[in-house]
Amino acid sequence: MDDATPTLTPRTVAARVLPVPRTASPQLQRSMSLLAETPIEALQFSPQTEEQWRGMIAASDALGRARLAELLKAFPATVSTTTLGGVTVREVTPADVDPAATPLLHFHGGAYVIYGGEPSVAEAVLGASFARRRVISVDYRMPPDHPFPAAVDDAAAVWRALIETHDAARIGVFGTSAGGGLLLAMTLKLKALGLPLPGALAPSTPWSDLAGESDSYRTNAGVDGVLPQYEGVLEGAARLYAGAAGLRDPLVSPVHGDFSGFPPSLLTTGTRDILLSDTVRVYRAMRAAGVEARLEVYEAMSHAEYTAAPGSPECAGVFGDIAAWFDRHLAR
Amino acid sequence: MDDATPTLTPRTVAARVLPVPRTASPQLQRSMSLLAETPIEALQFSPQTEEQWRGMIAASDALGRARLAELLKAFPATVSTTTLGGVTVREVTPADVDPAATPLLHFHGGAYVIYGGEPSVAEAVLGASFARRRVISVDYRMPPDHPFPAAVDDAAAVWRALIETHDAARIGVFGTSAGGGLLLAMTLKLKALGLPLPGALAPSTPWSDLAGESDSYRTNAGVDGVLPQYEGVLEGAARLYAGAAGLRDPLVSPVHGDFSGFPPSLLTTGTRDILLSDTVRVYRAMRAAGVEARLEVYEAMSHAEYTAAPGSPECAGVFGDIAAWFDRHLAR
Repeated sequence: MDDATPTLTPRTVAARVLPVPRTASPQLQRSMSLLAETPIEALQFSPQTEEQWRGMIAASDALGRARLAELLKAFPATVSTTTLGGVTVREVTPADVDPAATPLLHFHGGAYVIYGGEPSVAEAVLGASFARRRVISVDYRMPPDHPFPAAVDDAAAVWRALIETHDAARIGVFGTSAGGGLLLAMTLKLKALGLPLPGALAPSTPWSDLAGESDSYRTNAGVDGVLPQYEGVLEGAARLYAGAAGLRDPLVSPVHGDFSGFPPSLLTTGTRDILLSDTVRVYRAMRAAGVEARLEVYEAMSHAEYTAAPGSPECAGVFGDIAAWFDRHLAR
Repeated sequence: MDDATPTLTPRTVAARVLPVPRTASPQLQRSMSLLAETPIEALQFSPQTEEQWRGMIAASDALGRARLAELLKAFPATVSTTTLGGVTVREVTPADVDPAATPLLHFHGGAYVIYGGEPSVAEAVLGASFARRRVISVDYRMPPDHPFPAAVDDAAAVWRALIETHDAARIGVFGTSAGGGLLLAMTLKLKALGLPLPGALAPSTPWSDLAGESDSYRTNAGVDGVLPQYEGVLEGAARLYAGAAGLRDPLVSPVHGDFSGFPPSLLTTGTRDILLSDTVRVYRAMRAAGVEARLEVYEAMSHAEYTAAPGSPECAGVFGDIAAWFDRHLAR
C-alpha cells in the first residue's frame, strides 16, 4: 500500500425517494416535479460519434430557440447580431434599459457544446432585464469543430476589442455553467496576458472542474433534476471540449487556477446542484487568494434551475443579486 | 385533489457508494473515512424512554469530556465555572488572549440534549484560541428535566446580566448546531423584549428547522457522516426539547423568525451537511430582511465536522473566518 494514498473507506447510501420540498417556491416545486417526470434516458443520452453529437446539438438548439421566444414575451428585449474582435456577438437591449449604464459581457452555458447561435442569449435577456443594462453575449466557437482553446481565445479577443472603447473596470461579466467556467478561464488568461481585468464577475454554478473530481458529482448524482450525473454526456462533453489539453489545465478547469488579483466575484449555486462543489471550491479558492467574493446558495435548487423557472422568486433572487453586485462594483 | 396542494412527483435516487473525495483536506478525508467505518446503529440509536435518554446523555458526555481533554492539549486555555444571571457559565481564556479584546458569548451544540456541563466548552476553546478573546460559554438547561423555553430563557438571562457591564454592540455570539439555533432564538427574543442586540453573530450549521422540513434532511441523508438522518435521534430530540411548544414556533425553529434588524451574521456549513438547507434558508431569510450576512460552505464537509477534525484546514478556515468577522464588526 502506498503511504501517499491511504485506504479510505467510502460511504454507502441506500436508495431513496426525495419528495418535492415545500421549502422551495411553488414555481420551483413545479419545475422539480416536471423534471422528476422526465425519463432519465432523455437527460443521460451520451453521444458516441461526431454525428451523434451534431444530432444532439441540433435538437438542443431547437429547444433553446423555442424557450427563447417564450422568454422574450415575459422579458422584452431587442437582439442584434454583429462581430467584435472577429467573433460573433449578440447585443441584447432590454425594453427599459438605463441608457447611461455601462454594458455587461455574457457567456452562455451548454457544456461547451450546445446552445450556441440564437439560443445563446437566453440568460443574457434575463441579466439585461434585471440589470437594465445592455448585454454583449458572446457566441464563442465550440466543438466538435472548434475544441479548446477556441472558446477562451474568442473570449479574450472580444475583451480586447471591448476595452478599446470602454473602461475595463466599468464592465461586468456573467454567465452560467460553462459560461461561468469560461468567464473564469478568460480572466485567468487576461491576467497572464497583463491585460486590464473586468470590474466585477458573476459566475453562476460555474463548470470549474471538467475532470469530475468535485464531491457533489457523487453526492448530488440523481438528486439534481437538471443534470443528473457527470458520467455520460457531461464527461463526454468535457473530453470533446478539452481535445488535446488536459482536463486539469486551469484554462479548461479554472478551479485549478490562481485567483489572486481577481475582481469582486458573486457565485451562485443550489443545494441540489451537481456543480455545488464546483462553485464552493472556486469560492473558497478566491477567498484564500484574498478576492472579495460572495456565495449565494438556494434551497433545493438544481443546476441552473433558475433559468428553467424564469418567473420564480429564485430567478428574481439570482439576477436581482447579480444586478445589485454590478451596480455596487461598477460605475453606472 | 386539493388545489392548494398539487400532486408533485418525487425523485427516486438509486443506492450508491460515495468515495472519500481528494478535494477535501487530508485531515477531513481521514475523518470522513473513520465515520464511514462507524456502525450506522451507533449514530442512529433513538432513545424511547426517559431512562434511555439519560443513558445516552451520560455516554455522550463522557465522550465529550475525553475529547475536551485532548483538545486542550492542542489549544491551551483555562476554564473556570461561575454563574451569570443565575445561569451556570464557563469562562474560557486562551493562553494568548488579547487582554484588551471584548469577550464573546458561546452556546454549545448537542441537539438541545447532550454535551451540557463540562464538555460544553469544547467549541468555545476553539473560538477563543482563534479569536484570542475570552469566551463566556453558557451551560443552558436542557431536557428531559428542562424543555423549551428554559434554554432560551437562560440565554436571555445571561445576556441581560452581561450587558450590565459590557457594551452590547461590542459582544459577538457564536455556536454550532443547537448552539447556532439557540443564538438565533435568543436574538429573536431580545428583539421582542426591546433589549440591545449583540454586535455580530456567527451561527454555524444552525439547527433552525426542528420540524425537519428542510430539503437537505432528505438529500444529505446517509451522505452526512456525522448526523446521518433526521428520523430517529434528531427527531426525538426535537420533540423532547420542544415539549408543549410547536416545532414551527420561531423560538424553537428560528428559520420561521423575522430577521429584520439582526446584527451582521456569518453562517457556515458544508456540502454534505444534513443542515445545509437549515443554514441556507436562514441565510436567504436574513438577506431578504436586509441583514448584512455572509455564507461559507466547505467542500465535502458533514455537519459540524470542523469540530471533529480540529487540526484541519477546514477547522482553521471556519474559526479564522469567525474571528475575522468579530474583529471587523466588534470594536476590540
